[in-house]
Amino acid sequence: MDEMVSLAAQDDPEPYFDAHIFVCCNRRPDGHKRGSCAAKGSEALRDYMKARVKEAGIPHARVNMAGCLDRCEEGPCLVIYPAGVWYRIETRADVDAVIEQHLAGGGRAEALRLPPERS
Amino acid sequence: MDEMVSLAAQDDPEPYFDAHIFVCCNRRPDGHKRGSCAAKGSEALRDYMKARVKEAGIPHARVNMAGCLDRCEEGPCLVIYPAGVWYRIETRADVDAVIEQHLAGGGRAEALRLPPERS
Repeated sequence: MDEMVSLAAQDDPEPYFDAHIFVCCNRRPDGHKRGSCAAKGSEALRDYMKARVKEAGIPHARVNMAGCLDRCEEGPCLVIYPAGVWYRIETRADVDAVIEQHLAGGGRAEALRLPPERS
Repeated sequence: MDEMVSLAAQDDPEPYFDAHIFVCCNRRPDGHKRGSCAAKGSEALRDYMKARVKEAGIPHARVNMAGCLDRCEEGPCLVIYPAGVWYRIETRADVDAVIEQHLAGGGRAEALRLPPERS
């Protein structure tokens, strides 16, 4: 099995998207105890991010909406793959920071990262 | 910049989900020239996959719906991150194969993989 895993991973091609960004756009009813990213404005932030990434000319990047990423209490959140880095984006300025520091800059927007621990 | 990228990647934590599966659930009107994954049944396949992954007890896996993944002509499609492996899933049997061969087996469901080339 270990050999199978190793061979499989070794044979995987280059990423189809260098940065595939999923913004949680799940909406729960107002007053739900877990809250939801859409109730905290994620849909508009996703639209903003999609437009800004295009304007910035980030190559091979795609911004998608996604269903519930199960980090509701920490949202509005997004995850960037294949890196697997999670961010909380509350404002347009947060989105700009992720684009500038992570997508364009190649680093990490440290101040906005979600903690790595699984709940 | 190279050093910055390297440091950033080095500091990234373990994946929050070992297998984060995004099933394209975009729907276009009937007759659209690109077609769409939802028009080819992806929504029901996503529901089926979510239930089967849970039943199979795959640890740290999550099945999400996603907006248009921009591989419409090749769909219904899904991508599994952080591996970055894409599959075409037309039937429940295809979903079962991805679960058994990739998620549970640790290999790749080769017969169902999408080509690596960017369009």
